[in-house]
Parts: sequence; C-alpha cells; structure tokens
Amino acid sequence: MNQVDSLVEGFARKDRRSLAKAITIVESKRDTDRELSAKLLQCLGNPDRETLRIGITGSPGVGKSTLIENLGLELLESDSQICVLAVDPSSPVGGGSILGDKTRMPQLANDPRAYVRPSPTKDSLGGVAHRTHDVIKLCEAFGFDIIMVETVGVGQTELAVSSMVDLFFLMLLPQAGDELQGIKKGVMECADIIFINKKDLDPKGSQKLQSQCLSAIDLFRPRWKHWKVPVEQGSAVESNSLRKLISHFNDFVAIQKKYGSWHEQRKRQQLIWLRRAARHQLLLCSLENPAHENAIRALESDFLQSKKTSEEVIKEMLNLVGISGN
Amino acid sequence: MNQVDSLVEGFARKDRRSLAKAITIVESKRDTDRELSAKLLQCLGNPDRETLRIGITGSPGVGKSTLIENLGLELLESDSQICVLAVDPSSPVGGGSILGDKTRMPQLANDPRAYVRPSPTKDSLGGVAHRTHDVIKLCEAFGFDIIMVETVGVGQTELAVSSMVDLFFLMLLPQAGDELQGIKKGVMECADIIFINKKDLDPKGSQKLQSQCLSAIDLFRPRWKHWKVPVEQGSAVESNSLRKLISHFNDFVAIQKKYGSWHEQRKRQQLIWLRRAARHQLLLCSLENPAHENAIRALESDFLQSKKTSEEVIKEMLNLVGISGN
Repeated sequence: MNQVDSLVEGFARKDRRSLAKAITIVESKRDTDRELSAKLLQCLGNPDRETLRIGITGSPGVGKSTLIENLGLELLESDSQICVLAVDPSSPVGGGSILGDKTRMPQLANDPRAYVRPSPTKDSLGGVAHRTHDVIKLCEAFGFDIIMVETVGVGQTELAVSSMVDLFFLMLLPQAGDELQGIKKGVMECADIIFINKKDLDPKGSQKLQSQCLSAIDLFRPRWKHWKVPVEQGSAVESNSLRKLISHFNDFVAIQKKYGSWHEQRKRQQLIWLRRAARHQLLLCSLENPAHENAIRALESDFLQSKKTSEEVIKEMLNLVGISGN
Repeated sequence: MNQVDSLVEGFARKDRRSLAKAITIVESKRDTDRELSAKLLQCLGNPDRETLRIGITGSPGVGKSTLIENLGLELLESDSQICVLAVDPSSPVGGGSILGDKTRMPQLANDPRAYVRPSPTKDSLGGVAHRTHDVIKLCEAFGFDIIMVETVGVGQTELAVSSMVDLFFLMLLPQAGDELQGIKKGVMECADIIFINKKDLDPKGSQKLQSQCLSAIDLFRPRWKHWKVPVEQGSAVESNSLRKLISHFNDFVAIQKKYGSWHEQRKRQQLIWLRRAARHQLLLCSLENPAHENAIRALESDFLQSKKTSEEVIKEMLNLVGISGN
C-alpha cells in the first residue's frame, strides 16, 4: 500500500496519527512531499458534511487561548467535533515556532473529540495562507465539524486567515489606546463578530470601546448586506459571555446561508486558494526550477556586478523559463 | 520632452513636485506607470553618494513619530538631508490609508531640508517591499542622505522593511507584557539597535525589560559577528537619549563598513529586490497577462464547478502560459 492510500485508510479509521502525518506532509516544503500532498488532498476531496470555519484574532494577551478553550468545551456539548489550528508567525532567523504548545488549552487538547494543532509558518505570507487552507481541508476530511483558526499579531496574517474562514472573530481589550484601534481598522473591517474581553478590568473603558467600535462599523462599507457586526463585551471565562457569542455565531451562519452569502464566500475563497496554488506552482516550474538554477544565478551575478541592468536580467530570466517578457 | 526626461530634469533642479510625481508613478499599479517606473529608475540609477537607510519599527503608541521627528531635527544639524517614508498597512476593504499624515511630524515636515511622505500600501506584502525599495532609491537619487522608513504593526511588514535598510531600529514600551515580547521575537532578531521609550512611565518595568532584551539577544543567533545589539532606555523627547541613539547609529555604521558587512548586506538586499521584481514580472507576463485572461477565467470556472480538479486546472494554466508543469 502506498503512503497516500495508507493515510486515506487511516483517515477512514479516524486515526489521529494519520491526521498528524498528513498535516506534516501538507506543511512540508520538500518537493516529494509537495507531490504527495497534492495527491492526498485530491483523494480526500471535499467532505459532503457542512463544516464551520472560524478565524479568531486579536493582539497577544487579549485572551484568545482562554476563549478558544472555553468556547471549544462549550461547543463540544452540541456534539460537534472541534479542531483548533494556530497560525503562528515564526522567527525568520531561527525558524522556530514561538507559541503553538498545547498547554495553552489543556482541557480541550485532552478531549478525545477535539484536536489542537499548532501550524508553524516558517514561510512567507503566501505560504501561510496556502498551507493553512490545505490543513483546514484535511481536518474537515478527517471529520471535524468546527475548525477554529487562531492567528497572532496584527495585520497581514489575519487578513490572509480571514480569506479562509466562514466567520472572522476579533477580540479586543478595553484598555487599548486609540492608536491601537486605528491600526486595527483593516482587521476590524473583516470582522463578523467583535468581542471585548476582560471587561471587568476596565468596565468604563470597555463601554467606551464598544461605542467606538459600533460607530466605526457604521462608517465602514459593510462586509455583508444582511449582517450588522455585533460588538459584545464580557469575559472569556464566563459562560454567559460564551453563550452570547455562540448565539451570535449561530445567527451569523443562519443569515449567511439564508441569503446565499455563505456559498458565495466559500466559492470566492476557493478561487483565492486556486490562484495562490497556481502562482506557487508557476514559480516552482519556472524561476525556482532546479534546471534553470545555474543560469539564473549567473544572471543575478551579472546584475550585482552591474554588467546588466535589472530590466535586462529580468527579461533574460523570463526568456530562459519560456516566457516572453514584452 | 517625454515624462521620464522631464522628471529626471526635475530631480536635477531639486524640484519636490517631481519627486512626489515620481513616487506616485513608482507606487502605481497601472500598467503604463509600471513601464514608466522601470525607465525612471533606470535613468536615475544609483547615486554615488553614500546613504543611510534606517528602518524604525515598534507597536502603535510606542512613540515612533515623536522619535523620528526629534531624531530628524537632531540629524539635520549634521547637514544631512532627511527623508521619512511611512509604510502603512492600509485597509483591505476600503483601500484607504490610515496614518500617513504629515501632522504627526509637524516640525520635520515643514523643514526644507527634510521630506516626509506616507507610502500607502494598498497591496500585498510583496508589493509593499517591492515598491518601498524603489521609493527609497528615488529619494536617494533626489539627494537625500538619510532615509528613515517607519513601519507600523508587528510582523511581516517589519521583516520586509528590515530587508531594505542598513540599520533596523526597534522601539519598545516598558509596560508591555511578556507575551507581547514573545511575539516580537522575530522582529527582535532583526533589530540592530533597541530603544525602550517612555522609560519615565515605568522605570522599574523599563529596567526589567532591558535585562530581558539583553538576555534574549544572548540567546539569538547574532545577526552580525562584530556588533552586539545595544538596548537603550530613555525618552524620545530628551536630547540625551537622542544623542545616545545617534552615537549608536554612528558606531553601527562604522563597524559595518569596517568589516565589509555593510556592502555585503546591500548586495544581499539588491538580490532580494531583484528576485521580487522578477517574480512580479513573471506573473504579469504569464498568469496575469491580459492575453490569457479569458482562458484562465474559463479554467477557474471549470474548477469551481468541479468539472476539473485543482491539479488539472493548474497544469493547464501553466501549459497555457508556456510553462510545462511536470
């Protein structure tokens, strides 16, 4: 039995080690693994079941792990199988992963109905998005119904993740200064539900932030015609808050499905994914093709020694790989 | 006189409007502007003068604008011509720029020896880096000696900027929690000089953070063989702090030049820039070539309707543009 078949068979028996192995292959940069990965994704295909992909973002310290842990435990009660992926911007020099230990969600990580997996992104942003999307598909093929994708930091990574999920959830802290809120505008515009966590730390600040968010949302071009982004305040450790959030989740899903936006968004995301994958493959077959490596290095060296201009060098590179740069 | 010639002539007369126009062209996504931009950069070439490119990063609220304003005014005393570029992650939905008003650096922006220009990045990360590097080159060709590139946010943008500057400067706040410091590891590893601003807000926290940074730096693989990253604490409004920082800048430049790392880094950055530009051009001449648009849209639609798998579609796309995807 070849490796793909044995993994597919492992998926059928719900073998966690097969899932872990499959994710490792999908995340790998090795050429042989890239091929395996494409085959694997093709064999596993798209599950018929409906799944829910939730992106969860917020600054470090906002309480994402705590919320995911508690929300996850709550959602397990509804008989869902839950998977948590952490998109984790690694260090570019060392290459190691910073977060991504399961100890941040101890109860959820130990529940047999849940799966917690860090997804170190040793790669460029394109890489993050590309592979996380594939990992989501693997987890769905394995049988998980709800996929929570946690992202850290502020900015590009979040936006990449927001293009892979059905529901994008933003967490804020009441004390955050105005400038911080400003910078989050881009992320805020992508949020479907906003939650101000740790309200008890600063109830007045929380109240103020809620009003600020609500008026900011009024200013934005709305993402969805039939959905007004709710801004909830509370605490990730209070079941009252968790129940409110789950009720917002359910409302959002129901409305999105009712008006067809759900399907439209998934389709749009499929297209984004396809285009990324095509670009990636294009590069591998052209500028990063080992067959052209020596010639490309020689051209680069001509450029560095000012023997040729960047324009000349790029034109020659493209000709080399079979593309006529006009 | 064609547009390129008239801009080059404008540069020779130190006409600010020509610089602004040139930057707009370089930042533009329009096809005609892309061509103009390549010609312009080629005509202006690399100045013979030595310049200094400083990247300045830190979380929102850390005091970057204040520091740049005061540092800039201090540096003007040494007869340097200073240019400030703000790399500014724009909103993906609205497309507008969030920061980037000159009012944040009122004195510097009004000094005839300085130039403050926001650089809205409506684009993907690749775009940011690609174009900001070109804008830096324009500003140098215009006659600026010191280019300060300010970035906002935490993560990928900073790392892109760190690959375009000679000196990467990181600002921190004393109160920041441990988790925030953790997430900054990637950025911290790229820092050449670290400054803990607003020390007076929390002198004890500042002291503690300084020790933490110093021990973290000892753990990292050092970026430079002959440079130990200094961690300074102080205030961006105190001339004492500013003088210390400028002295670190001078030391860094001297040591980098002495050991050849300066030239090596610029060469490496040239290569990164060339590779980005080549990828960009590759894409424009293949998957984004208007001549293939209809065929590619048709393949995408086959994929969305599940008539073809992603693998088949991507292979056909590459064949279409003249690349044989194996």
